[in-house]
Amino acid sequence: MKKRLILVLLLLAAVTLGLAAQPAGESTPTWEVTEQQTAKAPKYVFMFIGDGMSHVQINAAQVLKGNNTKGSVSLEKLTFTEFPVSGLQTTYDATSFCPDSASTATSLSSGYKTHSGVLGLGIDKQYVGKNIAERLKEQKDWKVGIVSTVTINHATPAAYYAHVPSRNNYYDIGVQMANSGFDYFAGGSINKAEDGGKQSIYTLLEEQGYLVTDDKSEILSLSSKSGKVYAQSPRLQDGGAMPYAIDMDADDVTLAQFVKKGIDVLDNEKGFFMMVESGKIDWACHANDAASEIRDLLAFDEAIQEAVAFAEAHPDETLIVVTGDHETGGMTIGFASTGYNTAFNILENQKVSYVAFDGIMQEAIANNPDLSFQEALVLVEEYFGLVPPGSKASSEVLALSSLEYSRLEEAFRQAMLPKGSRANDQLSYQLYGSYNPFSITLTHILNNKAGIGWTSYSHTGTPVGVFAYGVGSEMFAGSYDNTDIFAKLKSLVEVV
Amino acid sequence: MKKRLILVLLLLAAVTLGLAAQPAGESTPTWEVTEQQTAKAPKYVFMFIGDGMSHVQINAAQVLKGNNTKGSVSLEKLTFTEFPVSGLQTTYDATSFCPDSASTATSLSSGYKTHSGVLGLGIDKQYVGKNIAERLKEQKDWKVGIVSTVTINHATPAAYYAHVPSRNNYYDIGVQMANSGFDYFAGGSINKAEDGGKQSIYTLLEEQGYLVTDDKSEILSLSSKSGKVYAQSPRLQDGGAMPYAIDMDADDVTLAQFVKKGIDVLDNEKGFFMMVESGKIDWACHANDAASEIRDLLAFDEAIQEAVAFAEAHPDETLIVVTGDHETGGMTIGFASTGYNTAFNILENQKVSYVAFDGIMQEAIANNPDLSFQEALVLVEEYFGLVPPGSKASSEVLALSSLEYSRLEEAFRQAMLPKGSRANDQLSYQLYGSYNPFSITLTHILNNKAGIGWTSYSHTGTPVGVFAYGVGSEMFAGSYDNTDIFAKLKSLVEVV
Repeated sequence: MKKRLILVLLLLAAVTLGLAAQPAGESTPTWEVTEQQTAKAPKYVFMFIGDGMSHVQINAAQVLKGNNTKGSVSLEKLTFTEFPVSGLQTTYDATSFCPDSASTATSLSSGYKTHSGVLGLGIDKQYVGKNIAERLKEQKDWKVGIVSTVTINHATPAAYYAHVPSRNNYYDIGVQMANSGFDYFAGGSINKAEDGGKQSIYTLLEEQGYLVTDDKSEILSLSSKSGKVYAQSPRLQDGGAMPYAIDMDADDVTLAQFVKKGIDVLDNEKGFFMMVESGKIDWACHANDAASEIRDLLAFDEAIQEAVAFAEAHPDETLIVVTGDHETGGMTIGFASTGYNTAFNILENQKVSYVAFDGIMQEAIANNPDLSFQEALVLVEEYFGLVPPGSKASSEVLALSSLEYSRLEEAFRQAMLPKGSRANDQLSYQLYGSYNPFSITLTHILNNKAGIGWTSYSHTGTPVGVFAYGVGSEMFAGSYDNTDIFAKLKSLVEVV
Repeated sequence: MKKRLILVLLLLAAVTLGLAAQPAGESTPTWEVTEQQTAKAPKYVFMFIGDGMSHVQINAAQVLKGNNTKGSVSLEKLTFTEFPVSGLQTTYDATSFCPDSASTATSLSSGYKTHSGVLGLGIDKQYVGKNIAERLKEQKDWKVGIVSTVTINHATPAAYYAHVPSRNNYYDIGVQMANSGFDYFAGGSINKAEDGGKQSIYTLLEEQGYLVTDDKSEILSLSSKSGKVYAQSPRLQDGGAMPYAIDMDADDVTLAQFVKKGIDVLDNEKGFFMMVESGKIDWACHANDAASEIRDLLAFDEAIQEAVAFAEAHPDETLIVVTGDHETGGMTIGFASTGYNTAFNILENQKVSYVAFDGIMQEAIANNPDLSFQEALVLVEEYFGLVPPGSKASSEVLALSSLEYSRLEEAFRQAMLPKGSRANDQLSYQLYGSYNPFSITLTHILNNKAGIGWTSYSHTGTPVGVFAYGVGSEMFAGSYDNTDIFAKLKSLVEVV
């Protein structure tokens, strides 16, 4: 009772004092002012989306970054798993518990559910309203940046500036990108930029005043004086995307560098919003390639460090939200054959992504159309460390079991057939999905030996973690729906 | 600047006022008193552990509780996913990212890491210190209840009262249970209660003054006047555990009833701590049986509702924490063959748990040792709804594909062999684990058709969600280690 009395007195004193201190003519009670001060609106907002990234992908990166040989474990946290606030979002869309990136990114950017494949429009493919980036641009004159490791008119980045009935309308999305008025685009290239003879989206961007560059030194010298920018990776890989982190070399521009330059370009007194997507976490998970997926996730975490460095310099004005749009692949840390053991150090034997290995195989076959399985095994050892049963391997677990060897031999046989002649039944799909049978069997075998399992080549219905840091971050605690992330951001940044 | 000035003035006023209101002789500054008031210690603490339960298990229950035919989705939240606070814990133990229940439950109950299999002792199998339940009993004279759907001397419940080098020391654990002084044990039976002629643990319990009962009406009339109680399920299933919820009938006592009666027995002015484990979520996940797992999880949620009802009657004194100890099975919502589709309504065709179906098959074979595959298919249709390719099924997806049919036929052939004669290679283990090949192939097929995948028969390294409600619940937000859960509870309930 005494404690309660003291609290009431405190509240009374606070209100009285507040009113007394209030200048004449202002009618807002000061108590509300101090409440506003606690829930201050952030001026700089970073939205990081790991496409296909849920808790297992994140923890797998923590395991690989830590140490894991068989029977020895230590886990190293990531920048964003150290954030003070974590939450959980459900990701289902209008018709599926295993949704796609168009519908989920629309829910994140715009706050409503829609069908898989639809971008920035409702279930009936009609316009519902502007997304968070558009609202900030129009209502608060913030600068806006959109960064992705995949193409910039791919579903996730497009959900922050486009409104089209299908994610495959790449050219229309590109036109909306050029007309967005946004200030910084960076990462991969533009899908179907000419679309069979139409005016190039690159040209449209230049006409709209964008500096368009894929020159590394020009990119690294970008600043707040550069004006509107589209900075493209000097080297492109599958589908016009940035290379996988596992395949990068010193000539590439990393995601962290694109984010750092984005901050330089966008920084201004009014504020900015930057959406950063790591899209190839998803692509690697589709292909059940853990080594490539984890390397891209660690590169994503390095990019987040750039935002944290900025937040530390602007502690009362910055909010960083990190999440995924859905899980991909049904990834698990643990696999039937390895039981309670994992040995992620085995993943270190993989030297290139499955995509790069596809290229290596293609080149080998171009040089020798009659390439034998035995000849292919030389490349297998070089790029995955795996050797035939009974061979001397650098580690005993790198020797293929007889089951693995026969699976790999059959996968090689299938891979050497013309695509139309390959087995096309339920079992083949379960084994290979729509991937090259040889390379996906190699990632499966290496992943399984490390203690990693996969159940799907598609997205799954696993809920996705949310990690937040900075002003307003406490709003992202708890369990909620992906559409609520838009609502929370909208309320925090005070747009309508 | 003005706002900051007001805040400083407010703080000054608060401190001054507090000190003024403070009675002479007390030296604690009142500002601290009001802080303590915010972080008030709970008097009634519920710790719910879903063994093997991570986000996928939880969301699968939300999907089944909602509605999911192909292309139609709605999700219904559970009692505990509506809790205001959620967090995330890592679950690795001293030597494995895929840990067991002994080490993880020890981390939860006692705050340190140990080896898989070890209960309430450190890595060197030496005594480290008391667990949270023992501390509350000794230091605050709280009553303590331990409830589990599996045996009460199984790893997870035992971690709250026992200290033994191996979870398999069931008799020793039983002795420590009888000597614990705890007030309420309920759920399954006692593993190896006689252990080859030793004095029965049941007798030891009675000698220690426990009312030991497995009579439903006696259980349902338990009250705060019953004294110390061990209430055992009237019907026992596999391993002396309570029956799976999917196999229960009106004569059984549900987990919710055991929790409700636990509250009646434990309720007292000083306070109580109740640990409630749903252990068969784990067992069903080991067996990759989603229908049974989800039903047990929904029964777990109903038990949590009893705690919520109590919390609503004691809003300023109750804390409820819900979590898992680790994930089991590598469960995913999504499977290769079903891609972006799920149809959980298919699970409704499963009428009994895999264990009950094993019993049904055993009986059929006892009646007819030459049971044919075609004869077994009659039972398959009755208990799983699955019919051979081309047959008329209640739903088109319930017809087995040719791949599924041949897998099931081979599994039946294996199941009809004596255990020692069954195939014993890597592939067989991947297909069947250590389970009956026929029943596990049936749950695999039904689960896959519903859009559920599994990667393992063991535990996995997926991080596990934490959900909290009530006094001090805000401490469970964020990402942390399982050992931190003990530390948070310990600090909240003010024991040393």
